[in-house]
Amino acid sequence: MKKSSKAKKEGSPRVGILMGSDSDWEVMSAAARRLTAFEVPHEIKVTSAHRSPAATAAWATSARKRGLQAVIVGAGAAAHLAGVVAAHTALPVIGVPLDATSLRGLDALLATVQMPSGVPVATVAIGGAENAALLAVQILALSDAALARKLDRFKADLEAQVEAKNARLQAHRQGA
Amino acid sequence: MKKSSKAKKEGSPRVGILMGSDSDWEVMSAAARRLTAFEVPHEIKVTSAHRSPAATAAWATSARKRGLQAVIVGAGAAAHLAGVVAAHTALPVIGVPLDATSLRGLDALLATVQMPSGVPVATVAIGGAENAALLAVQILALSDAALARKLDRFKADLEAQVEAKNARLQAHRQGA
Amino acid sequence: MKKSSKAKKEGSPRVGILMGSDSDWEVMSAAARRLTAFEVPHEIKVTSAHRSPAATAAWATSARKRGLQAVIVGAGAAAHLAGVVAAHTALPVIGVPLDATSLRGLDALLATVQMPSGVPVATVAIGGAENAALLAVQILALSDAALARKLDRFKADLEAQVEAKNARLQAHRQGA
Amino acid sequence: MKKSSKAKKEGSPRVGILMGSDSDWEVMSAAARRLTAFEVPHEIKVTSAHRSPAATAAWATSARKRGLQAVIVGAGAAAHLAGVVAAHTALPVIGVPLDATSLRGLDALLATVQMPSGVPVATVAIGGAENAALLAVQILALSDAALARKLDRFKADLEAQVEAKNARLQAHRQGA
Amino acid sequence: MKKSSKAKKEGSPRVGILMGSDSDWEVMSAAARRLTAFEVPHEIKVTSAHRSPAATAAWATSARKRGLQAVIVGAGAAAHLAGVVAAHTALPVIGVPLDATSLRGLDALLATVQMPSGVPVATVAIGGAENAALLAVQILALSDAALARKLDRFKADLEAQVEAKNARLQAHRQGA
Amino acid sequence: MKKSSKAKKEGSPRVGILMGSDSDWEVMSAAARRLTAFEVPHEIKVTSAHRSPAATAAWATSARKRGLQAVIVGAGAAAHLAGVVAAHTALPVIGVPLDATSLRGLDALLATVQMPSGVPVATVAIGGAENAALLAVQILALSDAALARKLDRFKADLEAQVEAKNARLQAHRQGA
Amino acid sequence: MKKSSKAKKEGSPRVGILMGSDSDWEVMSAAARRLTAFEVPHEIKVTSAHRSPAATAAWATSARKRGLQAVIVGAGAAAHLAGVVAAHTALPVIGVPLDATSLRGLDALLATVQMPSGVPVATVAIGGAENAALLAVQILALSDAALARKLDRFKADLEAQVEAKNARLQAHRQGA
Amino acid sequence: MKKSSKAKKEGSPRVGILMGSDSDWEVMSAAARRLTAFEVPHEIKVTSAHRSPAATAAWATSARKRGLQAVIVGAGAAAHLAGVVAAHTALPVIGVPLDATSLRGLDALLATVQMPSGVPVATVAIGGAENAALLAVQILALSDAALARKLDRFKADLEAQVEAKNARLQAHRQGA
Repeated sequence: MKKSSKAKKEGSPRVGILMGSDSDWEVMSAAARRLTAFEVPHEIKVTSAHRSPAATAAWATSARKRGLQAVIVGAGAAAHLAGVVAAHTALPVIGVPLDATSLRGLDALLATVQMPSGVPVATVAIGGAENAALLAVQILALSDAALARKLDRFKADLEAQVEAKNARLQAHRQGA
Repeated sequence: MKKSSKAKKEGSPRVGILMGSDSDWEVMSAAARRLTAFEVPHEIKVTSAHRSPAATAAWATSARKRGLQAVIVGAGAAAHLAGVVAAHTALPVIGVPLDATSLRGLDALLATVQMPSGVPVATVAIGGAENAALLAVQILALSDAALARKLDRFKADLEAQVEAKNARLQAHRQGA
Repeated sequence: MKKSSKAKKEGSPRVGILMGSDSDWEVMSAAARRLTAFEVPHEIKVTSAHRSPAATAAWATSARKRGLQAVIVGAGAAAHLAGVVAAHTALPVIGVPLDATSLRGLDALLATVQMPSGVPVATVAIGGAENAALLAVQILALSDAALARKLDRFKADLEAQVEAKNARLQAHRQGA
Repeated sequence: MKKSSKAKKEGSPRVGILMGSDSDWEVMSAAARRLTAFEVPHEIKVTSAHRSPAATAAWATSARKRGLQAVIVGAGAAAHLAGVVAAHTALPVIGVPLDATSLRGLDALLATVQMPSGVPVATVAIGGAENAALLAVQILALSDAALARKLDRFKADLEAQVEAKNARLQAHRQGA
Repeated sequence: MKKSSKAKKEGSPRVGILMGSDSDWEVMSAAARRLTAFEVPHEIKVTSAHRSPAATAAWATSARKRGLQAVIVGAGAAAHLAGVVAAHTALPVIGVPLDATSLRGLDALLATVQMPSGVPVATVAIGGAENAALLAVQILALSDAALARKLDRFKADLEAQVEAKNARLQAHRQGA
Repeated sequence: MKKSSKAKKEGSPRVGILMGSDSDWEVMSAAARRLTAFEVPHEIKVTSAHRSPAATAAWATSARKRGLQAVIVGAGAAAHLAGVVAAHTALPVIGVPLDATSLRGLDALLATVQMPSGVPVATVAIGGAENAALLAVQILALSDAALARKLDRFKADLEAQVEAKNARLQAHRQGA
Repeated sequence: MKKSSKAKKEGSPRVGILMGSDSDWEVMSAAARRLTAFEVPHEIKVTSAHRSPAATAAWATSARKRGLQAVIVGAGAAAHLAGVVAAHTALPVIGVPLDATSLRGLDALLATVQMPSGVPVATVAIGGAENAALLAVQILALSDAALARKLDRFKADLEAQVEAKNARLQAHRQGA
Repeated sequence: MKKSSKAKKEGSPRVGILMGSDSDWEVMSAAARRLTAFEVPHEIKVTSAHRSPAATAAWATSARKRGLQAVIVGAGAAAHLAGVVAAHTALPVIGVPLDATSLRGLDALLATVQMPSGVPVATVAIGGAENAALLAVQILALSDAALARKLDRFKADLEAQVEAKNARLQAHRQGA
């Protein structure tokens, strides 16, 4: 309890980012960057559903107590990590299927999203680490008005960026 | 603001369940039943990304103000409804791809999960309406201790049911 | 009304080319080049079904009034843009699925073509921007005899080009 | 010439519906019904790209002269019929991939939509005969104001039907 | 040690058959029947990677000590059970992907077979429970000469059955 | 030699039809019926690449000497039979992938058609037993003028049947 | 008739190699090289099912009269060329699906192999031009004893090459 | 018998590694390296199901007598080699589907794993040569206590490596 309330303080991680290998960091770092941009404290961890199952189970089981409110999990191939984490925690688990084999992430997508009744994984696009972070932010913003305002600004910025891209293309064509 | 705080009261819907046709109700009703079991007030609505786009946009745009905290969207074929709703709200949007064409839901899965950066949809399994509801419950439980306790009980029950199924199978074999 | 008749004048755009990002221009410019070769005035626009939904809806809703007769839409991933445009206009909407993810355009193809009854999208091949333009030309040529003649010449040229390629290959083999 | 102007008269077919076998009629009749509802005169024909290629080529080559303005083609398996028709006419050709083999229409979809540059086929969903007819109506409506008004009514009706379905579901739930 | 040597006695299970639900028994019973035909003692258990992870881990961790020499695991959808078992034991784990969703077992196949380096799962065909048992028998037969002889007889029988089927078909044709 | 010339006599089989199980006869009988209609003597045999490999190899190795000129092979699942036959004979081998698993023949198609360089299998559609027979007839007709004439008649009949189907559909519509 | 007998003379083409574009020559030249190695005279031609349908139909219709005994057709995307040729000739038509789009030849494979009853295409692997030539050689060898002997030598060589590769690998390992 | 007991001596191969071409060595060498690391004597051989079927059958038939206890088979495309080997031996056969065509190993996976009842192939991931070796080690370790201990160490090392990767990533982030 005490730990949990402490964890909600500035700086204590509110989101965990898990991945099966440090080679996944190239893609998963986009989630960390997006959380940092929203000033959401987070922790990262390399752990494996198959190679370090006990460590994974322990981490997931204690995630809520340690103050985490959402877990983002990147995994490729027969991507079991998100499902295994979801088996050990009632926190929302967000799965990022990674393009890590010759099947280009179709294997990871199906292994992440097709979870049986009772244990959901919130799956985003293949390689969609940034969207996983945004989903976590949307979840946290439900009880964090400051974050909700940032999210509204982010959505407005998205719209402005489209208009900017449009302007750039029009300019490019005029010049051509 | 007033509306929002009112919406959080007992009875005001906290989760919206959307679907493109009343024929989707056969699958999507599992989400409603699961929310009811968790005593989470919810509303349902038939609306279409393509046939009633203005009504859909209006509903999604006002969802947060009306006190909703998560939206569950079931759609089949070129399933755009979840993405379109996510375009109009910063609430977490949970997509349920439906098996509605000869491609058996693969079309709906890809059309739901492969969202571009900036606008995530939390996708569950094809036909996974119950898991969509559980994901919504997990999200709401982050700031609702009573719901969190129910969720813990639900997870414990899941485990007990597996053991019961095991016992049943053992008994069946002894008898055989 | 007045605007519509004005739009049909020489120079006013008759076809709109939409895309979700300026990075799509590399593929979609083939549509513009083909329309230019047929001297069909057209406009281009970057807009997004998910990031700028209001601008997209406004553009699509007013497309017919502004004199457009067909809309070409390029989109990748969970490609909703063509469907969203089709939801807001009764003009023929031509969808170009783009190869923008590790699934190589299969996601965009299914998300574009599998539209539900009532709201069709005329889908061409993955990356088929030139064919989208030709389809628009075929549509416009129904009430534009000059364009119809150009189209007949184009088809004759296609045939001649095949014969030229054949001649080249025969020459290459003789030389070898 | 004379024939062409005559063909445009009331009653002369403006749209052709082609299919490879009379067994395709079960699906393709939806196109005919939709055209009839819009009072668009049309002809139907069973012809095959592979079994009656000369008849198919002759029909397609003369389609424009006979006053047709669009051709709807339903075909399953290695669905070549739409492409073969498009090879012989500059009219817009709308392809309806049919679910006719164990691959559930994926074969027909790819064989219809993946046309090479120069010869487009406007492809709709697997089994999407009604949408093929709507696309033909959208094309014809560009130069037929009465048809354009019917199309606007149709789109408004679509929206109303969604609201009716919603009302029905709400009523069903109240009753339950 | 003592337990292990005891387990090898007549009657102690040498193979474990696991499945996520008692509804999987319809398919997985073929594995039990085949093992029974080879007089290989075995145990069955319903356990879930996601709903009863602790029980699954405990079962897998102790499998070798309890005298098991191979584990057969049937699972459908995002089939994680075989991989999770393989994470907790160095025994050979044989995965049977089940056809349990609209994707017809393709999801379970990829989720079972595409295991990352270090933790293999010996995967058989979708629904291939009998072959899973045969694979277990092949493994056990390496150090069990009696079983090896039965296996040789089984292979000879297979060949004879093909000849019998051939004879039946020839007779059927003569009669026709 | 003597055997070979004898085999070419009226009545000696010129085409072999192989299948892995008598349950495949339901589909493969269409090949036999088509050959019978063309009065092409043929033999049928149940044999398996995996269960009776020696018998299969012996049959294939002697096929040419026994006077066969083409072999038709139906197989489902990991369909190896056509490839294994092709490994043992220089006769043209025609593969018919069968829809025998939950993957609906996609597995059999890829396992039949994707043969490595050096050992081709002439693959027809999933379940395409009749076309396999026609392909065999086309091959035999190259040196059999009577058969070539029958084939020409068959092609003419195909065309006539399409016209008959068309007439039937027109009549049906007039009546409706 | 006269033409046909003349065509069988040394030097007159016995096999035709067709392709839709000269860019396909890179893959299809393997068929020509293999035929040349077997001293089978052949002709090549660039022609298109969609861009030059009349020339394609004329070529196919006259193929048998000109002395051809088999036709090899390479095509990518919505690969209709083999089917269209088969519609116009009773000669065996061998289809080579080409990897020409982002779908990596899956589209061409399905569009080539899934032919409807009555008009077979003997399909080889994606990009399998060499095997297409071997299949043609197998067909021609049925009535050409010299060619049959060469084919036997080729098969023996294949076997020897495998042994040579094995020797090379063993040597490489000894050296390592 | 004598040969068999001799084969179990130090140095006699206990595992065979087969592949269809020496070009497969690049992937399959990972299996050899892993076996070497476990000090499991093994032999390698290039042999083909289609090009050298007799040699393959002979090798497989004698495998057990020569003292082998498991066979690892790498094959791509229409990967029949593992199935053909399994047809000729009762030893456990482990199949490694290779990514050797434009279909990226999906063809090889289905052709390897979808074996019919009676003749299993223990299939690992596409390109999973190392896991194939580990599976062989797991099988051998059942009756080889020293190997079992090495396997336990290997599993512990896997776990330690994950922790090391995690430490590296944490350090990298601190430095950044």
